[in-house]
Amino acid sequence: MAEPWEEFLGLVRELRALEDISGLLSWDQRVMMPVRGAAARAGHQRALAALHHSRLVNPRLGELVRRFEDGELPAGQRRIVERLSRARDHAVRVPARLVDELAEATSAGYDTWLEAREASSFSIFAPALERIVALKVEQAEALGYAGEPYDAHLDLFEEGETVRTTEPMLRGLAEDLAPLLSMVRNSRRTRPQLPRGPYPADAQMRLNREVAETIGYAFDAGRLDVTVHPFEQTVGTGDVRITTRFLPDDVTSGLLATIHECGHAMYEQGLPADLAGTYAGVAASFGLHESQSRFWENHVGRHRAFWEREAGHVAALFPDVPGLDIETLHAACTRVEPSLVRVEADEATYPLHIVLRFELELALFRGELRTGDLPGAFREGLQKHLGVVPANDTEGVLQDVHWSAGLFGYFPSYAIGSVYAASLYRAACDALGGKPAVEESMRVGDFTGLLGWLRDNVHSLGSTMSARDIVGRATGMPASGPIDHTDYIAHLHDRYDAIYAG
Amino acid sequence: MAEPWEEFLGLVRELRALEDISGLLSWDQRVMMPVRGAAARAGHQRALAALHHSRLVNPRLGELVRRFEDGELPAGQRRIVERLSRARDHAVRVPARLVDELAEATSAGYDTWLEAREASSFSIFAPALERIVALKVEQAEALGYAGEPYDAHLDLFEEGETVRTTEPMLRGLAEDLAPLLSMVRNSRRTRPQLPRGPYPADAQMRLNREVAETIGYAFDAGRLDVTVHPFEQTVGTGDVRITTRFLPDDVTSGLLATIHECGHAMYEQGLPADLAGTYAGVAASFGLHESQSRFWENHVGRHRAFWEREAGHVAALFPDVPGLDIETLHAACTRVEPSLVRVEADEATYPLHIVLRFELELALFRGELRTGDLPGAFREGLQKHLGVVPANDTEGVLQDVHWSAGLFGYFPSYAIGSVYAASLYRAACDALGGKPAVEESMRVGDFTGLLGWLRDNVHSLGSTMSARDIVGRATGMPASGPIDHTDYIAHLHDRYDAIYAG
Repeated sequence: MAEPWEEFLGLVRELRALEDISGLLSWDQRVMMPVRGAAARAGHQRALAALHHSRLVNPRLGELVRRFEDGELPAGQRRIVERLSRARDHAVRVPARLVDELAEATSAGYDTWLEAREASSFSIFAPALERIVALKVEQAEALGYAGEPYDAHLDLFEEGETVRTTEPMLRGLAEDLAPLLSMVRNSRRTRPQLPRGPYPADAQMRLNREVAETIGYAFDAGRLDVTVHPFEQTVGTGDVRITTRFLPDDVTSGLLATIHECGHAMYEQGLPADLAGTYAGVAASFGLHESQSRFWENHVGRHRAFWEREAGHVAALFPDVPGLDIETLHAACTRVEPSLVRVEADEATYPLHIVLRFELELALFRGELRTGDLPGAFREGLQKHLGVVPANDTEGVLQDVHWSAGLFGYFPSYAIGSVYAASLYRAACDALGGKPAVEESMRVGDFTGLLGWLRDNVHSLGSTMSARDIVGRATGMPASGPIDHTDYIAHLHDRYDAIYAG
Repeated sequence: MAEPWEEFLGLVRELRALEDISGLLSWDQRVMMPVRGAAARAGHQRALAALHHSRLVNPRLGELVRRFEDGELPAGQRRIVERLSRARDHAVRVPARLVDELAEATSAGYDTWLEAREASSFSIFAPALERIVALKVEQAEALGYAGEPYDAHLDLFEEGETVRTTEPMLRGLAEDLAPLLSMVRNSRRTRPQLPRGPYPADAQMRLNREVAETIGYAFDAGRLDVTVHPFEQTVGTGDVRITTRFLPDDVTSGLLATIHECGHAMYEQGLPADLAGTYAGVAASFGLHESQSRFWENHVGRHRAFWEREAGHVAALFPDVPGLDIETLHAACTRVEPSLVRVEADEATYPLHIVLRFELELALFRGELRTGDLPGAFREGLQKHLGVVPANDTEGVLQDVHWSAGLFGYFPSYAIGSVYAASLYRAACDALGGKPAVEESMRVGDFTGLLGWLRDNVHSLGSTMSARDIVGRATGMPASGPIDHTDYIAHLHDRYDAIYAG
């Protein structure tokens, strides 16, 4: 069976190569491309996507998959087939007509979303969104699902998760965060304000590179550039790139963004080399990916022990800014304040933005909410969960690009990321001699323990099991039923009770 | 016939998209990629090349080509078919076995060439080169040729040119340059030496960007970066990138390199938009491409009138370097001095390096020279044509990468470029009111006349005719028989008699 296996691997590697190449095109578009290159680049991406699709659905690949599924394979090879089969099923099940309609609807949707934001008027976007939702429900029927249509989309981002496993976690988060927010709102404690700089970009870049290197991001297998929105992009094995952005009046914001992207990138840099070029060698889920960025951002970058070391570096790098001491810098990284905009939310209120979006998406998919009623529902949800009221649609229902791109079922992964991160950090500390020992490592800038633990327990597993199984194995979280958010809430109380109580 | 034509265009555009994408991968590899990304990148390029080949030889494309070749098409469409058919024939005629062997031989050839250079010992490289030459002769038989095997390779770079049209030009150049070199050798004139700086890189970058913009390179459709070896790379319509490099002790070297690459890039930026995505919309030949870089480098960047404007800018940008006046700067750009290394040669002696390589390649292909005798033949040729003697193989026969990559028949395009450039410049001046008028435009930094003439007479034609026809139409050079190098020799006498006579 060696020969068909080699043929199969060759076809899978070609698919993965096309994905990496598309990743480079996308990175280049956001970081390097001149403005007038946009039209040609869109054509290149379309050509790659069409080739990828035709190679994925090609009948010979289907034959090989069936042959291996019916045969006896070692577990490692079986998982490679399983993962490819999953991707191929997604491609085969959705008819070409629906793929084209979705591409057209989301392309138009993005344009009208931009227009609607500009005018701060949801009604401009409403017809396009209504069409997108209808097509996504149709897509769910084509893909198939466990319990209800929304499950089909959840499963695209989190293999195996459903409304049944996700909703209790999200509703539980809303419930358990309420008393914490109450405490913050009623707190009479005052905290020092971060000096507004100026923090020159070149000194921020030096700081960010130094921190990225210290926590374990490998610059010989990546690079750090500046873009409007920070992101991580894998371009191939040994080539995992990140970007960040610097605010002139806040040195912590860019640094936390860099640490966040480093978390994503170190996951990619640690994926199993022997499975490179297969779908068993990639990240296990979007939520697990986000857990890696949140692990480093929340549990390292916002930790007081981390700042005990970094505060001195920061003060030295910005000699013209007085008052850059540990209290001030740590306070800037651990402020809790309910706000309107998801991407600017702090680590405690962030999941509430997700709960709101999840509730609305589910209601749309269940036919319990009409598209036209979204702005009001969004406003009410913001008030209910966060106690804030948007002044207009741009601050409210139009703030995210996701729906215009047809990305339903994606938001929960962000909350799952925060939740997984807290459990992983708790388990890592248990394994590494307890929290005080880990904190002492942070104080001396030694992150090899934490990174090594993540390498062994998360990164090196790739997709050889589901994200849920990986987290379960590493932390003891139950591998079925609702996702358990206990560690996350405990982490928040651990950090913020001391800061805000009284 | 509309539907098959759309199908055909779709297939051609896909091929061109894959070429553009490969161009981006190559640019990124040389400018941006982290070191550990190399292995994955090589895999991506192999995957793209395999896809490109399979799409190019696919029988359906062949059917469509034959159908259009047999039918009646408007001239514009006919040329699109002709150009695709030419590319397809090249791919179809060379058997897969030979393609693989060549890929393997040149990959190994490059490695042993590096090793041989390191050790300055040709014998390390000799067996690999012998195999490459044998395979290239075999490839010539597969491709077919007009008169002799070497013609097949010439034709890959210069459609329609043969030994019969190229050799007389190259031998004529050697003959006509001898008296000029004699004059230079016997000259008693002394010229001011350029101060050795230092010229900080950031100030050089400002100068280079300003000059690039002034002569007409569009930055919103490109970008300028720094690499070890300057190059131009097209990534797509509206995205034509260049690189340069800066010497700390010579401000003119980097600037001339930038102007050279701008010449390549402005050609690409001026190709016909309505033919984009077809092989009629690309550059007509390697020699014509080189003529565009040489046009700007030699006829503008080395022109005294150009420096009458730029000298002041340079002096202002480097206030710490005394003596940056027009005499000194212009002298640095117009020094003639026979030397060992082709890539460092001045505009007058450069073609002699090409004559030498052409003679050796032709002798190898004709079986008149054995690979093992190359080092001696190279040494003798350098002495005969340039009067210099290399100290070792690295300075001599091992100086170029081309042969290790199997690039035989490529070198003549460089000389053709210089020759075409001189004729195009002469014709442009005739059309624009004579040389004094053009020089006056240079003095005030107005290059719209020259660029506009090139756009109309070269760039906008793409490959709708052969390079030779384009140059013939624009300059009156005979469109068949030996390439006419009269204008080039006249240009050199025009410039250098005044500098070196006496």
